[in-house]
Amino acid sequence: MESMIIYAPIVLAIIGLLYMWMKRSWVLKQDAGDGKMKEISDHIYEGALAFLNAEYKLLTIFVIVVSIALAVVSFVVPTTHWLIVIAFIFGAFFSALAGNMGMKIATKTNVRTTQAAKTSLPNALGVSFGGGTVMGLGVAGLAVLGLTSFFILFFHYFMGGVWTSTADMTIVLETLAGFSLGAESIALFARVGGGIYTKAADVGADLVGKVEAGIPEDDPRNPATIADNVGDNVGDVAGMGADLFGSYVATVLAAMVLGNYVIKDMGGSIDDVFGGIGPVLLPMAIAGAGIIISMIGTMLVKISSNDAKESQVMRALNIGNWVSIALVAVTCFALVKWMLPATMQMEFFGEGLKEISSMRVFGATIIGLIVGGAISSVTEYYTGLGKKPILKIVQQSSTGAGTNIIAGLATGMISTFPSVLLFAGAIWASYAFAGFYGVALAASAMMATTAMQLAIDAFGPISDNAGGIAEMSEQEPIVRERTDILDSVGNTTAATGKGFAIASAALTSLALFAAYVTFTGIEGINIFKAPVLAMLFVGGMIPVVFSALAMNAVGKAAMEMVQEVRRQFREIPGIMEGTGKPQYDKCVAISTEASLREMMLPGLLTIGFPLVIAFVPMIFGMDNLAIAEMLGGYMAGVTVSGVLWAIFQNNAGGAWDNAKKSFEAGVLIDGEMTYKGSEAHKAAVTGDTVGDPFKDTSGPSMNILIKLTCLIGLVIAPILGGHTIGETNNSIEQAEIINVAGVNNSTTKEVEVRMTTEGDETVAEVRTTITEDGKTDVKVKTYRGTKAEVEAQLENR
Amino acid sequence: MESMIIYAPIVLAIIGLLYMWMKRSWVLKQDAGDGKMKEISDHIYEGALAFLNAEYKLLTIFVIVVSIALAVVSFVVPTTHWLIVIAFIFGAFFSALAGNMGMKIATKTNVRTTQAAKTSLPNALGVSFGGGTVMGLGVAGLAVLGLTSFFILFFHYFMGGVWTSTADMTIVLETLAGFSLGAESIALFARVGGGIYTKAADVGADLVGKVEAGIPEDDPRNPATIADNVGDNVGDVAGMGADLFGSYVATVLAAMVLGNYVIKDMGGSIDDVFGGIGPVLLPMAIAGAGIIISMIGTMLVKISSNDAKESQVMRALNIGNWVSIALVAVTCFALVKWMLPATMQMEFFGEGLKEISSMRVFGATIIGLIVGGAISSVTEYYTGLGKKPILKIVQQSSTGAGTNIIAGLATGMISTFPSVLLFAGAIWASYAFAGFYGVALAASAMMATTAMQLAIDAFGPISDNAGGIAEMSEQEPIVRERTDILDSVGNTTAATGKGFAIASAALTSLALFAAYVTFTGIEGINIFKAPVLAMLFVGGMIPVVFSALAMNAVGKAAMEMVQEVRRQFREIPGIMEGTGKPQYDKCVAISTEASLREMMLPGLLTIGFPLVIAFVPMIFGMDNLAIAEMLGGYMAGVTVSGVLWAIFQNNAGGAWDNAKKSFEAGVLIDGEMTYKGSEAHKAAVTGDTVGDPFKDTSGPSMNILIKLTCLIGLVIAPILGGHTIGETNNSIEQAEIINVAGVNNSTTKEVEVRMTTEGDETVAEVRTTITEDGKTDVKVKTYRGTKAEVEAQLENR
Repeated sequence: MESMIIYAPIVLAIIGLLYMWMKRSWVLKQDAGDGKMKEISDHIYEGALAFLNAEYKLLTIFVIVVSIALAVVSFVVPTTHWLIVIAFIFGAFFSALAGNMGMKIATKTNVRTTQAAKTSLPNALGVSFGGGTVMGLGVAGLAVLGLTSFFILFFHYFMGGVWTSTADMTIVLETLAGFSLGAESIALFARVGGGIYTKAADVGADLVGKVEAGIPEDDPRNPATIADNVGDNVGDVAGMGADLFGSYVATVLAAMVLGNYVIKDMGGSIDDVFGGIGPVLLPMAIAGAGIIISMIGTMLVKISSNDAKESQVMRALNIGNWVSIALVAVTCFALVKWMLPATMQMEFFGEGLKEISSMRVFGATIIGLIVGGAISSVTEYYTGLGKKPILKIVQQSSTGAGTNIIAGLATGMISTFPSVLLFAGAIWASYAFAGFYGVALAASAMMATTAMQLAIDAFGPISDNAGGIAEMSEQEPIVRERTDILDSVGNTTAATGKGFAIASAALTSLALFAAYVTFTGIEGINIFKAPVLAMLFVGGMIPVVFSALAMNAVGKAAMEMVQEVRRQFREIPGIMEGTGKPQYDKCVAISTEASLREMMLPGLLTIGFPLVIAFVPMIFGMDNLAIAEMLGGYMAGVTVSGVLWAIFQNNAGGAWDNAKKSFEAGVLIDGEMTYKGSEAHKAAVTGDTVGDPFKDTSGPSMNILIKLTCLIGLVIAPILGGHTIGETNNSIEQAEIINVAGVNNSTTKEVEVRMTTEGDETVAEVRTTITEDGKTDVKVKTYRGTKAEVEAQLENR
Repeated sequence: MESMIIYAPIVLAIIGLLYMWMKRSWVLKQDAGDGKMKEISDHIYEGALAFLNAEYKLLTIFVIVVSIALAVVSFVVPTTHWLIVIAFIFGAFFSALAGNMGMKIATKTNVRTTQAAKTSLPNALGVSFGGGTVMGLGVAGLAVLGLTSFFILFFHYFMGGVWTSTADMTIVLETLAGFSLGAESIALFARVGGGIYTKAADVGADLVGKVEAGIPEDDPRNPATIADNVGDNVGDVAGMGADLFGSYVATVLAAMVLGNYVIKDMGGSIDDVFGGIGPVLLPMAIAGAGIIISMIGTMLVKISSNDAKESQVMRALNIGNWVSIALVAVTCFALVKWMLPATMQMEFFGEGLKEISSMRVFGATIIGLIVGGAISSVTEYYTGLGKKPILKIVQQSSTGAGTNIIAGLATGMISTFPSVLLFAGAIWASYAFAGFYGVALAASAMMATTAMQLAIDAFGPISDNAGGIAEMSEQEPIVRERTDILDSVGNTTAATGKGFAIASAALTSLALFAAYVTFTGIEGINIFKAPVLAMLFVGGMIPVVFSALAMNAVGKAAMEMVQEVRRQFREIPGIMEGTGKPQYDKCVAISTEASLREMMLPGLLTIGFPLVIAFVPMIFGMDNLAIAEMLGGYMAGVTVSGVLWAIFQNNAGGAWDNAKKSFEAGVLIDGEMTYKGSEAHKAAVTGDTVGDPFKDTSGPSMNILIKLTCLIGLVIAPILGGHTIGETNNSIEQAEIINVAGVNNSTTKEVEVRMTTEGDETVAEVRTTITEDGKTDVKVKTYRGTKAEVEAQLENR
């Protein structure tokens, strides 16, 4: 049975997908409401499809270009196999398919949620969360299905389905990296493009509709209102789905790569009942089990009372979430115990081989689960209604927009403190437990509940849309009240979901970073080398510039939308009286075109920079391993800075949003109750305008930026190092111990060995010292040149 | 003669200080105007003194506490000498003295500038720039005088005034680091405290005076107006002076440390006419020469026409600036040629020893000069009136404060792109020229014109104050017009000065970072070790949180000021009619107390974090070298993130400021001329409110944060590693070559050496490989335990 475990994730994924299909049929069977509702819903559905189709056209070109580039590379570089092209194309295809599926179900669910809200709140929750479940299981199921299938395929193709060597497994996993690269590339465009789309439509609709024309939000007379609702699906549903699809795949892949290196550290092969690849299979098994666990979790989300408030809805979601996290912990224990050798050897850089019991790997997974939850809680604290940071921003709104904005910025900045400490603690602890394999498995455990997280996340925008449809189709106020309860809960889950997304992206990037270092065969990334340090700086700058480009893109696209809405108000007769029909499709087209155009530059920045760093020095004849180390410095810079800017922007944006929302129920400022429409509220609205691109465009894009950067590095890795082929004439001719002595009056004792090679007369002198506390320290000097030159150098030393 | 060169910097510094004294007498001899003007000027002078005195009281306590701590450390840790305490106290004292001197002359010059502006613009420039010159030469002269004197003292104390060994020189320089630490600690409080003071007073004065009471800026009826003018001196003059004093000292120190390591790489001693310490003396010689060059530069700054406009004033400053930079280049060439051996050996990490000609060191200094100038130009582009980025922010103001703020943030963020690329290029190129010694000398060359830079920088706030006095004492409009021309030029030089300050701080930090690594004796900082990577994250977070604390501090202090001003308007009869006299001193006291109180937390963060990282793991028995590497990761994180946030905040703040100023002359928005008082202008004012703490408080504080962090690391360095003293029982008993062979089918050839020690049976195995391209690669494995345990481990490997 154990030898068949390799197929288990596929089976589990298919079970998940079947359940998803059932759930999908159930949702689609629900009543879609009256004619007016259907009409609006169809507009949103078509708008969303229009965006997707335009996006896919563009992405097809992108995929073709990258495929050709990869194919060329695979023919030129002997260590890269052409199958990586196939993996890349399928990765892109699966990611697009998952996004498409999610978006379709979301746009079908929204009108059904509105209709269900006519009957009761529990029904509305059931339908909207059902839609979210379809989305979550679809994404996770396709991710596990695709990755596992390709792994099995390559495992058979390159290794004949049985363990041969870690080197062969490395080739399997390097080729599999193409799948992850494909998925993440699509995610880049979905997240960034979607983020620009949603905010351009939102700002455009608000600025002319609400502010200039004075009509309420979601008013059907506003030509941009459909684009605004499409945006919620494009950005929050499809973008988030693609983001987590990419994280899921990348995390599992990175953990597999590091599992292979565990086998290497254990002597190149292990003897277990899983064909000797237990450590490689474990991450896939956890991911597969996670699908079933998430399925169970989603079944637990229900409320019974029709008079339920936000807190009860929140509790229902929390129960589902916490139960699934607990189940993952139990499953990890069982799987780790079953699939890993009881003790393993792992090489810790600078510390040599260490004995690691499998229970320490389990410890690492627990770290992942705890930190995932803790970072979500921190996010909730800094962005939650009624919490201290929000109340402070509300108070600062009374002295104007300037102080409101300073307070919001400061809140976002301060929130990096606990988040980063938690995160640094997670790196440290999971590494101390089980090396970088531990870090990768911490990420895997955290990501195991991805389907559940996505379900919780996706039901928010669905409810938001349902509210919009209720407004546009002029339903009874009770309908809007019920969808508003769901929407309000959805805002909180959106914030914690962003915390989860960034935590998982960060851990994934670290695992990819570790996989990169082991792939290239460099000994580490030493920032004491100036070129590496320079690249650390450059990497640190990229997320800042990327964010600025994304923000500017929103501004530009929103301006186009403003002009179009103004034009329609001016030129279409009877539009304000409700007799003329606004041209919704024009606004949808503007958002679509603008977002696709504006995502080019940030995309180019993300993909172009690592390539420039890798290949330009290569042209100038720089040593490949030195380049690999520089690129590693760049990756570290992007990751550190990207995580900081993601937390800062997401939390500042979320805080401003909820500070503004606080005025709806009224807030106490200087002893006076202050409501919507006050000067303080206006200041808070300004803050929210600044926060919108922060939290919905540039902030969430950071996830993709850091993951994609590390993935590109991983794909370039085999070109840079590790597998040099060909004979050398540097064989060592002579090696002699030339000195065994203490140094001056110091405590260290040292051995000097001189090695002479025949080829180009390289002489290396290695001085090894053992210090007081038993530490070993090594210094190497290399002299090169003709025999006479080397001798002269030795004289002078 | 050459052997006396060690005293040359002292002589040059004294010449600079004598010239400064002459200039000071000349300025003080100028007419201080009528009674009203004198009265206001005296208020400002007294307010500034009040702040300084309060600050010094607090700093005395701080200096005593740190001195005791250092003394304890020096008695416990055998490698730290007690003289470091003396050096620390004098460093703090000299820095405070320089700040005091600068602030006194600035507050005396302002009223004389107003008076001179009554006669002509050239006179006004002469007086205000004269004050700046006094400030600049005072700071630079004291820095060189203090550092050189202590170097000579320690050189004689520890080495008897002649070269003994690099180890002894290391002790000299480690002790000298105390001087730099003292200077930088004062700078922290001066910069942060001053930054909080100036913005609290500014915002407080504007919010109640301009907005609520509707009286113009600098109106004598506003109780906060004196505090506001004091703030210009406290923040922009004393803060900037202390900042550059610290950079100057730290840069020279770091270059000296690295010079000592050049001597080490050359075999432990060199034979030159400078007593064998040419590479150590060179940075001091450049600094000394820089004082005379700056003196010449300041003499070139004059205009002749009374009808001169901003551009002519700017040209006069530029001539002085560029001539001094050119003179530094020439001087560097001569000094490098004269003082350095024609060829040197330098160890490049991972590349072994390299031959470096002295002309390559000169190349590095040229890189420093070019990049210093280029970063200032980039700053000017992103923040200059009439430039594209500013025009864009102006356009975005038409749609409200939200879009204005997004545009300003994006501008600041985008500006990191060219700045960081330039900066990374500088690291790379100067390192390629001459290793980290090259990086340090690039910084030294850039800093050589510090006196000139400070003169250019300080004349701005002096002119600003002169304008304020003109307004408050109700002079003819022509007087204000003339001071406004100077003030406007001063705004541009303030922005470029900030560019210079951050560039120099960043290069200084890198040089300190390199000195730290060599001090501790670690082989590098490998971010592939998880604890090091975790600390890189934590370090990256510190500047973000520091900035937030500084911004919040301004908000809090400003609120107190607002309440006090409101109280005075309410309670003092006849204040608005000009018959009641406002209590200026109360407002000064509030700003003073608030700023000193609020700088505690950021100060604690800066000083506390490195100490926690160094000493907490030590308590838990972690290996010292591992801690040293972690602390190095932290330092790198703070530096990379700090540089980014400094550029971002300074440039965003500067851009908002000038976008607001653009409305004074009128701007074209959507084809319409728009002026002050329009809705767009109000939006721009909101942006400026956000930008104020960015550019005057948190942004400039980053310089100190990164330098002080690296300095604290440098002072801790000897505790962490390098010079362990005492006998060990780990002497090597046996060393044998156990294998000389190729590895499998690979191309690398390797030698294995096994070392056995008697003590605790440590066995180290060193495997050295020489790869295809002649690179040497070393792997060490250490086995520890009893003899039986070690043997068992060897069996299993």
